[in-house]
Amino acid sequence: MEERLRLIGETRYHNLHPFHDMLHGGRLTKGQVQAWAINRYYYQSSIPLKDAIIVSRFTDRLIRVEWRHRIEDHDGAPESEGGIERWLQLTDGLGISRDYVESTQGILPATRFAVDAYVHFVRDRSPLEAIASSLTELFAPQLHEQRISGMLEHYDFIRPEIMTYFKRRLSQAPRDAAFALDYVKRNARTPEERALVCDALLFKTQVLWVQLDALYHAYVSGFPPPGAFRPQVEA
Amino acid sequence: MEERLRLIGETRYHNLHPFHDMLHGGRLTKGQVQAWAINRYYYQSSIPLKDAIIVSRFTDRLIRVEWRHRIEDHDGAPESEGGIERWLQLTDGLGISRDYVESTQGILPATRFAVDAYVHFVRDRSPLEAIASSLTELFAPQLHEQRISGMLEHYDFIRPEIMTYFKRRLSQAPRDAAFALDYVKRNARTPEERALVCDALLFKTQVLWVQLDALYHAYVSGFPPPGAFRPQVEA
Repeated sequence: MEERLRLIGETRYHNLHPFHDMLHGGRLTKGQVQAWAINRYYYQSSIPLKDAIIVSRFTDRLIRVEWRHRIEDHDGAPESEGGIERWLQLTDGLGISRDYVESTQGILPATRFAVDAYVHFVRDRSPLEAIASSLTELFAPQLHEQRISGMLEHYDFIRPEIMTYFKRRLSQAPRDAAFALDYVKRNARTPEERALVCDALLFKTQVLWVQLDALYHAYVSGFPPPGAFRPQVEA
Repeated sequence: MEERLRLIGETRYHNLHPFHDMLHGGRLTKGQVQAWAINRYYYQSSIPLKDAIIVSRFTDRLIRVEWRHRIEDHDGAPESEGGIERWLQLTDGLGISRDYVESTQGILPATRFAVDAYVHFVRDRSPLEAIASSLTELFAPQLHEQRISGMLEHYDFIRPEIMTYFKRRLSQAPRDAAFALDYVKRNARTPEERALVCDALLFKTQVLWVQLDALYHAYVSGFPPPGAFRPQVEA
């Protein structure tokens, strides 16, 4: 099963998406990077909701304790920032109003539907599938490294301090992924359960891919839907 | 409120979408029309689920009786076909295997997420919003007329008998829309409730628009996502 999961990563993970090539290769305009960031914010801000639902699916206290740290990783604590705050530092650095970002009013409906599908998935499917859907974190560190170096190299409007979200994920994601992988290996005991685990990962790769397809169509091909964020035309 | 609803229709309904221009104007290939049809099938086949959920939201028996006819309109009865069967006659007429269409395995993930968002909406929002989300039917008959005439005129692979789904909607949709409009006018009694009704219609226009954006990106711009239907290359 682990082989199948890694094959799904090699063929479906969104590091393969043309929008990411452009983002990391410096071929997007600042407006397109802004669009990416405000849409990503919706995904990021939904992760604690998704993880709280997963915590609610387990009667096993130790699993709840382990999974709960993820909520703190993103939400932070009274005295320390979390991933969401670091994401807002990115959007600050890109010159976008925090109120606008947090309102989510400019995001693509496709982003909303994809992210909400992820939240509904962990609510409606089995606890095993809910944990399995997080396994894209197995493939994230490499992508984050490419992103940090690529964006710093190519965009003069990207400074190192606004890339802190991704630097923190370099250490957090492997720990989270290791727990989730161990959990599914121990708890998927039948061929049907192993197929469900693989399908859950496949589903999650679709959640990520759909968001980039929608960004490409709206902001690269030039078809922003009614009501969505419109980048300022650069002089 | 009715004025606001009609303005939403004029500015957001998917008759305005470039993909529909191409579909009705004969500028799609047969493969692109096939892609549209198999993705639309997922939407059509989810409508009875959506309507059954709405029936379950009402303790008022008369509303349930009125709304229940929609399930029969789409599912049919033991001795009579419904809308879904007529949709399969369309995909039959386009030369696509019924098993493939009914499996939904080739549909775009964006289609799945948008349609599932609609089903979840009527489950999770108020009964008033659930009914309001059906109000796109106010605008459907004109679109269906354009579709019937446009596709018959421009595509030699479209015969009149496979367009029966749309002909039936010309009479069904106005009746359904009239009930829903009357319901929301009588039951949205505060400014907040009227805003929720308008937002529900806006949401539904996004459900429809996202599906066409995804079809355009995949099959007109040429970026079908991994695993999705690939039209046969025409000789």
